[in-house]
Amino acid sequence: MNPETLFWLVPLASVIALAFAAVFFFNMKKADEGTDRMKEIAGYVREGAMAYLKQQYKVVALVFVIIAIIFCVMAAFDMQNHIVPVAFLTGGFFSGLAGFIGMKTATYASGRVAQACRDEQDGLNRGLKLAFRSGAVLGLTVVGFGLLDISGWYLILDNTGLIEAEGISRLVEITTIMLTFGMGASLQALFARVGGGIYTKAADVGADLVGKTEYHFNEDDPRNPATIADNVGDNVGDVAGMGADLYESYAGSILASAALGAAAVAGMHIADAQAAYDTGLKMVMAPMIIGAVGAILSVLGIFIVRTKQGATQSQLMAALNRGINFSGVLIALAAAAVLYLLGIENWLGLWGSIVIGLVVGILIGKVTEYYTSFEYKPVKFIAENATTGPATVIISGIGVGMISTCWPVIFIVLGTIGAYLCAAGEFMFTGENMSMGLYGIGIAAVGMLSTLGLTLATDAYGPISDNAGGNAEMSELGESVRSRTDALDALGNTTAATGKGFAIGSAALTALALLASYIEEIKIAALRFGETFSPSFFSNDLINSAELAKMNIAQFMAKFDVTLMNPKVLLGIFVGAMLSFLFCGLTMNAVGRAAKSMVEEVRRQLSDKDVFEGRKKADYARCVGISTQGAQREMIVPSMIAVIVPIATGLLLGVPGVFGLLAGGLAGGFVLAVFMANSGGAWDNAKKFIETGDADFCGKHTPVHDASVVGDTVGDPFKDTSGPSLNILIKLMSMVSIVTAGLNVAFSLL
Amino acid sequence: MNPETLFWLVPLASVIALAFAAVFFFNMKKADEGTDRMKEIAGYVREGAMAYLKQQYKVVALVFVIIAIIFCVMAAFDMQNHIVPVAFLTGGFFSGLAGFIGMKTATYASGRVAQACRDEQDGLNRGLKLAFRSGAVLGLTVVGFGLLDISGWYLILDNTGLIEAEGISRLVEITTIMLTFGMGASLQALFARVGGGIYTKAADVGADLVGKTEYHFNEDDPRNPATIADNVGDNVGDVAGMGADLYESYAGSILASAALGAAAVAGMHIADAQAAYDTGLKMVMAPMIIGAVGAILSVLGIFIVRTKQGATQSQLMAALNRGINFSGVLIALAAAAVLYLLGIENWLGLWGSIVIGLVVGILIGKVTEYYTSFEYKPVKFIAENATTGPATVIISGIGVGMISTCWPVIFIVLGTIGAYLCAAGEFMFTGENMSMGLYGIGIAAVGMLSTLGLTLATDAYGPISDNAGGNAEMSELGESVRSRTDALDALGNTTAATGKGFAIGSAALTALALLASYIEEIKIAALRFGETFSPSFFSNDLINSAELAKMNIAQFMAKFDVTLMNPKVLLGIFVGAMLSFLFCGLTMNAVGRAAKSMVEEVRRQLSDKDVFEGRKKADYARCVGISTQGAQREMIVPSMIAVIVPIATGLLLGVPGVFGLLAGGLAGGFVLAVFMANSGGAWDNAKKFIETGDADFCGKHTPVHDASVVGDTVGDPFKDTSGPSLNILIKLMSMVSIVTAGLNVAFSLL
Repeated sequence: MNPETLFWLVPLASVIALAFAAVFFFNMKKADEGTDRMKEIAGYVREGAMAYLKQQYKVVALVFVIIAIIFCVMAAFDMQNHIVPVAFLTGGFFSGLAGFIGMKTATYASGRVAQACRDEQDGLNRGLKLAFRSGAVLGLTVVGFGLLDISGWYLILDNTGLIEAEGISRLVEITTIMLTFGMGASLQALFARVGGGIYTKAADVGADLVGKTEYHFNEDDPRNPATIADNVGDNVGDVAGMGADLYESYAGSILASAALGAAAVAGMHIADAQAAYDTGLKMVMAPMIIGAVGAILSVLGIFIVRTKQGATQSQLMAALNRGINFSGVLIALAAAAVLYLLGIENWLGLWGSIVIGLVVGILIGKVTEYYTSFEYKPVKFIAENATTGPATVIISGIGVGMISTCWPVIFIVLGTIGAYLCAAGEFMFTGENMSMGLYGIGIAAVGMLSTLGLTLATDAYGPISDNAGGNAEMSELGESVRSRTDALDALGNTTAATGKGFAIGSAALTALALLASYIEEIKIAALRFGETFSPSFFSNDLINSAELAKMNIAQFMAKFDVTLMNPKVLLGIFVGAMLSFLFCGLTMNAVGRAAKSMVEEVRRQLSDKDVFEGRKKADYARCVGISTQGAQREMIVPSMIAVIVPIATGLLLGVPGVFGLLAGGLAGGFVLAVFMANSGGAWDNAKKFIETGDADFCGKHTPVHDASVVGDTVGDPFKDTSGPSLNILIKLMSMVSIVTAGLNVAFSLL
Repeated sequence: MNPETLFWLVPLASVIALAFAAVFFFNMKKADEGTDRMKEIAGYVREGAMAYLKQQYKVVALVFVIIAIIFCVMAAFDMQNHIVPVAFLTGGFFSGLAGFIGMKTATYASGRVAQACRDEQDGLNRGLKLAFRSGAVLGLTVVGFGLLDISGWYLILDNTGLIEAEGISRLVEITTIMLTFGMGASLQALFARVGGGIYTKAADVGADLVGKTEYHFNEDDPRNPATIADNVGDNVGDVAGMGADLYESYAGSILASAALGAAAVAGMHIADAQAAYDTGLKMVMAPMIIGAVGAILSVLGIFIVRTKQGATQSQLMAALNRGINFSGVLIALAAAAVLYLLGIENWLGLWGSIVIGLVVGILIGKVTEYYTSFEYKPVKFIAENATTGPATVIISGIGVGMISTCWPVIFIVLGTIGAYLCAAGEFMFTGENMSMGLYGIGIAAVGMLSTLGLTLATDAYGPISDNAGGNAEMSELGESVRSRTDALDALGNTTAATGKGFAIGSAALTALALLASYIEEIKIAALRFGETFSPSFFSNDLINSAELAKMNIAQFMAKFDVTLMNPKVLLGIFVGAMLSFLFCGLTMNAVGRAAKSMVEEVRRQLSDKDVFEGRKKADYARCVGISTQGAQREMIVPSMIAVIVPIATGLLLGVPGVFGLLAGGLAGGFVLAVFMANSGGAWDNAKKFIETGDADFCGKHTPVHDASVVGDTVGDPFKDTSGPSLNILIKLMSMVSIVTAGLNVAFSLL
């Protein structure tokens, strides 16, 4: 079939996804909002969240404008394509918009979910469906906007006179420009994750430390002044932050694969220009169309998720899994059909890569579940260590988290080998097939993320149920309602953990694919810049741009000496690995500082006996303000490091240094992210295990429980601030290197 | 001057170092041992330590025999030089012997130091001198045995008929074989560090958790049954473990530089065979002779360390620093003379590399001090966070530790660039000068470690004073004595932290240099094996051994495609980074498990009122037994991972995979090690700061202090088990890859 006909599936899928997002949104708005008290609580959370986002977008907009101006200057000096600044801005805009809509939905939904849970007959099912479909608004918005941005840019670049090149070079240029909107999305996502992560954990840690540990309040006790801030935090961190993050992963994986596909065909040096273009077009279209098919089938999966009253945890989990498995199988089948219909020669091999991506995503999710769910040994081991106090809880949690990095790395390694082998036919670096192998890795990431509409729905579902529980507690709706919202919330914790596995797994594959795109961008920048250029600041050598453009990846790497004995590469790897730690350290301390102000404020308010005994309303707004200011102040430095270091490395150490930086950052960041996410998740559930009372040492408000609360509190910034921000750091550094490759080439001539 | 004449400085320095070690040892033995109670306590510690070492060496000997047999088989099949198994065993033997002697000395010295501190006139000075000179026994033993092993092997290999090759190839072969005794030393060191680290921290954590936190005992209260085990632990972990570790670093850096020097000259393809040999000989001799000169001048420095009664912390520190600075300056001057006398062409450049190594070592030490001493902001920040409970202590300590990785990495990066530039004349990868640049990096490590005789004395001094304090407390010697031993001990904490900076810094440089030795070993193995071989399991390509032998580093790397886009390299980097985390996770959990048994035992004993009130003697031996068994059981798995993974990676992913593994492990391990050591040190001193009472929130036995004890307890395995073991892991993986390179080549032919 003609790829250009199949391509229309992409805008179509975008429209379908956005239409269903709208339907779910308006259906949710029609649901009963409950009592006046419930409306009041929901209103506080909504106001707080919107006030935060407004403030956040102001700061981010300023940064975007500054960077866009710099890009305009670079474009004016021909260091960059002139469309880059615009592409950069649209990426940031859509990423932010997806987060905004998701959060708006979540803050409307949570009160209504609490109200749905009040139904004694069918409350659990109604609550689950409402929460899940509200979560689906985020999932479908992300996917819909992603496909819209991709198909829109492709149509603009292909059908206007903006691109002069013809044949396969045209496709290479189009896809590389499109990749740069990924940088806008990445940067927006980083701000959302870091800012939101600091906000939510400052509030959470502050609320827990005083409320739970010092005053033995329950979660979400209305007397606790930080409660509203805590609930706001779930929305700005876990909904808006997660949405922006995965928007970027989703678009990034599709765009990186498309760019790799074009580059792979360009590297084959097919004599017949038309044949080369046709082959390239199929490779460029494939990831987009597979994404589109995935989006449509995810919508189907959403309708399958339902449960019955009194369902157990595993029944609830089964309800969610049914939807995911159903869509996953359909998508796998549909992807085979798409590749076959496109008439790609090695369609079976590429299909293998896609299936491997899907499977690796699921396996990483399962490992995450093993290490973070209290059904299994590791969490129980941490819980047992609570009997000897908080120190052993921390030691064992860190131990478990570090050990838990083993399997995800093995899966990524095996998955990468598998995807490469399937696509290239052999696992060799040299030879013609290497670009195809890398394309296989990219398309495996597309496969992993093809169910995103659905998996993101299960992610966003978590904070919505959490907030529903908060609303129920603060509105004093009674035990039975609270027990239903608790059941929904507990499920949310597991889906959040597996969702993080997906996010980091896809980030690793996408970042691997982006490494190859950096090569293409250097080639394009060199051609744009002049006939020759010098490979780095320290060098007197000159490289011929036209010759460079014809090199395959192996030749390029040899020309720039990007080998592991080149000290510049090794130093880049050191800096990359260090950067992940520095970034985490800065965000951890940011949470620590903001939480400290929060603790002091909560202690101050509760020292008033009227507030403590519930006669006087706590001043929620002050706590919301503390979190907002803390997050805004603290998010700038870590985010800017991610932008500045790759540029500085490029200028000082040249292409080998940048490769080292990206590889070191990728490997170090991946492992560190898995460690932090899993330690955090395991501590959280170790505490929950102790609360269940299932073992003889368990029980609430015992010293053992107190020890486990320390673990949970430490885990909060691990799993919700530093860990997930690393996914984005990894990709943003690659994106920045790609977009500023021209600067790199230009500077070397000074 | 004739290099072969200057070479005799090496055995001479070895004899001088060992002679002074003996003098200090017998002088110490002559000192007064104090009261019967003091003798009894010292006896318990000595017995416990010896019992542990006996058990440890049994297990290690078994592992060594098994590996030596495997090596014999490999040698029989020509996959390895026939001398390798013997060299491997001697490395392990001397490494263990150095640790053993150091520990024997420490256990004799600590009681005597306590006795010396009882002198009301000159106690502090006498205690300092005795403790320091006893520490110097370890420092000089390590240096003496290192130089003995090196010069002995060189003489044997050069003067017997074992090596047939002539000219520069002879030097390449000799130095590469000598390198393999580094693997024996590394493996012994890993067992000593991991086993000792688990032992000491299980005892420490167990003693603190029950004694300090639950019963509010003071440190080393004789009623606490784990006290003796805790004191034994300081000896087996911090003395024997540290000694074995630095023996390996010291010998490794000299041997790696010598091997690089020979390889660099071989790569120049000098036509005149005699001229080539002469040039090569100078390069091979230089690191050995500089080490020898350093050893002799360190002895001088030792005699400078003295202080006066009532000296403050900073005066004590100044006393130690005077010795180190004095020796450092002298060594720098002497190194210039040695290089000049040897007649090395670029003697000034190489001298620059050595000075850079010395300076980087000092700078890393200073940064470590900044992040771990309570004189500065970071530790005070953690102490402040204790006011909001243990969770914020942990969060801020992890944050500080992660941020603290930034400067050490920058110093290593700048130092590496500097050392490379000085030696090679330009910072380029290609060109003739690259091998010289790498030689510069190796010789920078030699420079950093040239003061080892002295710096290691300051390290070993720490646990000796700590034990002296323990002896004073248990023998109830009174406040004034205890205050003097406390002053000595506090100083020991700072020197321990800076010592760790040195250990990890030199490990990074040595490991960088070892990467180049791996290349030489692959070349030699290929020549030994046959005319052609296949580069890896997945490959059908064939490589010609003779051609390979002639390649320079850049050509070698290009031939094997060890570039950063080769998926095998990238996957190796992932696995390497993960391995550091896995290793730390396993050792953290090992400490957790062993500490838990200890806690239960201590609780059981203290539940007996007679023990608690001091009427009945606590059963120290049981606690010693628990630590011993725990350490032996838990050290096997992590140590074996370090041996097996590089071999498996070599077999599956070939040379590119091994390079990736080593680079990923090196960068990831370095950063992780700095983070863990500094977090641990900072927590320790945050607690000490709170104990000083210098800020308004301070004071012992307050909730703030309790919170800081949690941090200290978590920090124990960070800084004394997992963190320092990583130094060795990094180097051992390189050593294993080098020694088993033949297997790698052979397997690819199956």
